Amino acid sequence: MTEAAQTLEGWYSLHDFRLINWQVWTSYSAEERAEAIEEYIALEQKWRKTEAAKEGSTAVYSIVGQKADMMFMHLRETLEELQQIETEFNKTKLAAAMMPAYSYVSIVELSNYVHEPGEDPLQNPYIISRLKPELPKAKHICFYPMDKRRQGEDNWYMLPLEARREMMRSHGNIGRKYAGKVKQVITGSIGFDDWEWGVTLFSDDALQFKKLITEMRYDEASARYADFGEFFVGNLADNDTVRQILS
Amino acid sequence: MTEAAQTLEGWYSLHDFRLINWQVWTSYSAEERAEAIEEYIALEQKWRKTEAAKEGSTAVYSIVGQKADMMFMHLRETLEELQQIETEFNKTKLAAAMMPAYSYVSIVELSNYVHEPGEDPLQNPYIISRLKPELPKAKHICFYPMDKRRQGEDNWYMLPLEARREMMRSHGNIGRKYAGKVKQVITGSIGFDDWEWGVTLFSDDALQFKKLITEMRYDEASARYADFGEFFVGNLADNDTVRQILS
Amino acid sequence: MTEAAQTLEGWYSLHDFRLINWQVWTSYSAEERAEAIEEYIALEQKWRKTEAAKEGSTAVYSIVGQKADMMFMHLRETLEELQQIETEFNKTKLAAAMMPAYSYVSIVELSNYVHEPGEDPLQNPYIISRLKPELPKAKHICFYPMDKRRQGEDNWYMLPLEARREMMRSHGNIGRKYAGKVKQVITGSIGFDDWEWGVTLFSDDALQFKKLITEMRYDEASARYADFGEFFVGNLADNDTVRQILS
Amino acid sequence: MTEAAQTLEGWYSLHDFRLINWQVWTSYSAEERAEAIEEYIALEQKWRKTEAAKEGSTAVYSIVGQKADMMFMHLRETLEELQQIETEFNKTKLAAAMMPAYSYVSIVELSNYVHEPGEDPLQNPYIISRLKPELPKAKHICFYPMDKRRQGEDNWYMLPLEARREMMRSHGNIGRKYAGKVKQVITGSIGFDDWEWGVTLFSDDALQFKKLITEMRYDEASARYADFGEFFVGNLADNDTVRQILS
Amino acid sequence: MTEAAQTLEGWYSLHDFRLINWQVWTSYSAEERAEAIEEYIALEQKWRKTEAAKEGSTAVYSIVGQKADMMFMHLRETLEELQQIETEFNKTKLAAAMMPAYSYVSIVELSNYVHEPGEDPLQNPYIISRLKPELPKAKHICFYPMDKRRQGEDNWYMLPLEARREMMRSHGNIGRKYAGKVKQVITGSIGFDDWEWGVTLFSDDALQFKKLITEMRYDEASARYADFGEFFVGNLADNDTVRQILS
Repeated sequence: MTEAAQTLEGWYSLHDFRLINWQVWTSYSAEERAEAIEEYIALEQKWRKTEAAKEGSTAVYSIVGQKADMMFMHLRETLEELQQIETEFNKTKLAAAMMPAYSYVSIVELSNYVHEPGEDPLQNPYIISRLKPELPKAKHICFYPMDKRRQGEDNWYMLPLEARREMMRSHGNIGRKYAGKVKQVITGSIGFDDWEWGVTLFSDDALQFKKLITEMRYDEASARYADFGEFFVGNLADNDTVRQILS
Repeated sequence: MTEAAQTLEGWYSLHDFRLINWQVWTSYSAEERAEAIEEYIALEQKWRKTEAAKEGSTAVYSIVGQKADMMFMHLRETLEELQQIETEFNKTKLAAAMMPAYSYVSIVELSNYVHEPGEDPLQNPYIISRLKPELPKAKHICFYPMDKRRQGEDNWYMLPLEARREMMRSHGNIGRKYAGKVKQVITGSIGFDDWEWGVTLFSDDALQFKKLITEMRYDEASARYADFGEFFVGNLADNDTVRQILS
Repeated sequence: MTEAAQTLEGWYSLHDFRLINWQVWTSYSAEERAEAIEEYIALEQKWRKTEAAKEGSTAVYSIVGQKADMMFMHLRETLEELQQIETEFNKTKLAAAMMPAYSYVSIVELSNYVHEPGEDPLQNPYIISRLKPELPKAKHICFYPMDKRRQGEDNWYMLPLEARREMMRSHGNIGRKYAGKVKQVITGSIGFDDWEWGVTLFSDDALQFKKLITEMRYDEASARYADFGEFFVGNLADNDTVRQILS
Repeated sequence: MTEAAQTLEGWYSLHDFRLINWQVWTSYSAEERAEAIEEYIALEQKWRKTEAAKEGSTAVYSIVGQKADMMFMHLRETLEELQQIETEFNKTKLAAAMMPAYSYVSIVELSNYVHEPGEDPLQNPYIISRLKPELPKAKHICFYPMDKRRQGEDNWYMLPLEARREMMRSHGNIGRKYAGKVKQVITGSIGFDDWEWGVTLFSDDALQFKKLITEMRYDEASARYADFGEFFVGNLADNDTVRQILS
Repeated sequence: MTEAAQTLEGWYSLHDFRLINWQVWTSYSAEERAEAIEEYIALEQKWRKTEAAKEGSTAVYSIVGQKADMMFMHLRETLEELQQIETEFNKTKLAAAMMPAYSYVSIVELSNYVHEPGEDPLQNPYIISRLKPELPKAKHICFYPMDKRRQGEDNWYMLPLEARREMMRSHGNIGRKYAGKVKQVITGSIGFDDWEWGVTLFSDDALQFKKLITEMRYDEASARYADFGEFFVGNLADNDTVRQILS
């Protein structure tokens, strides 16, 4: 048995992807539509209050292509809160004109690859701000789940800790080259969902997602040891954008 | 041919995952909804009576994310009883507002890795309590099915019994570190469902699921020899919670 | 090219799995439901007449879990007869309250691993009774499709005939240990459906399915060379049971 | 880079599989059903005229099991004609009571493994008759798509031409043993659909499909180098049969 | 870590595949259908204006087989524009009679395998015309997504840059043999969709798609290192064709 990586966990996370059922939506009267939009905005305001109180954070994006139309990413202290948000949204008139598309349950995670030995990371405000972050309001989002591979000679979990740490250091160096361009939130999902991690990237320039992930793909940590799930890319959806989409 | 593991079996198990069809549910009148909830609670009371009589056990959880909304785990003496529960539930007004999401058929299993040679495990009240357990009412549940891998060099079923026993011992040691934090019910499903085992974990702290499974993943028994299905995580759903979700 | 196994074929087989659409079924009036049940029973009586005339056989089971609710297994002399049964069933009021779940087309098959050299198996009444069997009315059924693996070093079809025969002999020995407990019907499906074989097991004790298949899994023929599809397990559904389920 | 196989191409091909939506079909009045059947037969007559004019060919079969109910295989000179057939069929009252099940786009293909060096195959009337064939009206059909494998050591496309030619010759010898029993139409689909080839077999004895494909599976060309998609098996559906199914 | 390939990116791309819901479409009155067609044509004219202004390009094809009926490929400067097109289309009466079938989000990409060292490719009008191309109005289209393989010994991303460059040069040579017959648009999708690249081919002779891709498949870059997704093939759908399909 090799030594497991030490991790720190913060807020639980729910990525909630929905498709608009245009048949249902367009069957609503203009009045019903307006009502539905205002009901949604009231809910969104509630999420923003939680964010202002630093008791959670929410990001709302519209997804490009047919995989989903909207994506709501919620961070909260407990799984119970995430489920209450889900249920509350499901009862709205807007949700009644939507279909489930995909979801992902995880928890904000920092690996101890990033902190210095001897330091108590939970006393570090920077660490806390990364474990319980306010999600960026960047123009674009990219989400994908991933696994470390366990396949024949390419078995991440059979590698010694030092080899894994070295590869993650190299991987982290690539990430750091994109500092200021791409902000990433890593969430762990072993025991919570079908992949081991979720990766959520934020940027004002969507092309940076491609450049960053491509560069990483040539790095051994990805090239030999990463398996990827579905990729979603989207645009920031503030309330004006939501109104525009649904008008 | 290597020697098969000896196992002990107890109650048959059905994990029954359902999605709420909110369109149907919200189309019910307030009266119909109240009726549907009371009909469900009457059924739940019947399950509790069976549990009190030690003729079975039932756990009800609400699942986070879009894979399912509710999960009913039933343990019973026979497959016929499990099916009667399913049919009885399917005829309720609540079930009419739900859609099938996933199910798993298995049987509570103890491998003889856990008992001492020479002992007759079926005379052991502790063993009996594990084969026919009362399911915990912990705050959180985690369920996933799994296989032992048969792939090229990584073929569990071609290993000698002693090698498998040694790996399971190491695996069990990890599990024991979480005693008091996580309770696990292992159910075998060869011949009953698509994976070889179901793993159901109960804890008051969902993060312990992640910590336990992560630690195991670096252990050779998982790292080289385990393949996993879908993961479901949820919150305890007593009748008050069910009322709240559906109100 | 290695020598292909010689096989004997009997009746064509259709496994027809259906889900009950409870929304449709409960929308029927009590009268319509009674009518639908009687129409089904009349059809079932027709199948029993064919069975009595030794021109086919039919088994009806209710499946546990959400994969299917009912399973009809029909053996007939021709593919045309199987399709007529399917079409006739599809036109009933009961079928209108059901949804397709899964089906499997195959033909009863005996490999010549089981008969003595020099013997003409088709003169052997025992062989005939196995090629055109009356399906047991055991309490439980287990069905799964399977392939022999063709993957890297584990390629069944590249093995010499003698090696395959030896492995099948060992495999058969396990099966024989369960004589009297489990009855198995092997159907071949190369050219007919997506897997190479269907395995249908009958037993009064469902646990024997698990014990038999587990023991086989540690045998090289399965451990290295078998890939499995979905598993279905069910309870005998005579007309009284069908009435009870649908009442 | 190894040398690509030389091929000859004939008519484009569309395999069009449909499920009958019995709910819709049985909701039609007797009059509407008769109308729908006659509309279909008029369309079928049009296909037969094209066949008589040697400008295409069409085969109609009913599929056994739940994968599909009907299969229409059309050969035509252009992709545009295939699409017009599809669109014309989609507008019929019968199609409105059907659901898409599967389709396959390909082109009749002969590999030059079959013709003598020095010969111009396109001057050979036999070759022409195979590139633009009249589809047999045999009692049974079997369709499956397939790939040549590119996996580790088993990579067909990395083999030298001579090795591939030798294996295909052995493969062809098996096929020839079934001459008079099974007629096969090979269609190539690289660039047109998800697999590399479609194989359509015709026979008056469905068991010959199983015997032929099984024998081939022990041949290295299949054993090591073939991956298979879904298999469909069916019965000839002339207009009387269609009437009977739908009556 | 091996060196990542340098790439140039141009317009973002959305491939939007839709199925016609004939039940809905034929439920429209003749007037509604005419209205829906004219509304679509007005939208198409808007796309053509954008194309004339060199601010994007759009290709409309009808797909053969059941995977999709129509395919709209849009190139635009931003992801926001792509999404607005999607939303605008979704609100039309035609879209209400269609179902989502598949979509692909990517960005026009040129690898630096194609330009000379020392040259600034972005000063090259030819390069610009390939990064922001007017899509051909060829008779046929072929689309498929693909990955470079990362599997055991066949791991593209672990190869040194020079080996990859050499293989891509050989690959490019095959492509060049088809100059004048097949025009290809490569779009990169790492970070945007589930595969790494989309390949869109245009030709007046659909058979050239098969010949080109087949020849490439025997080339090591594909034979050992390419994994392919779904293939779609279609015919040019100008407004007259659309009218004809929908009439």
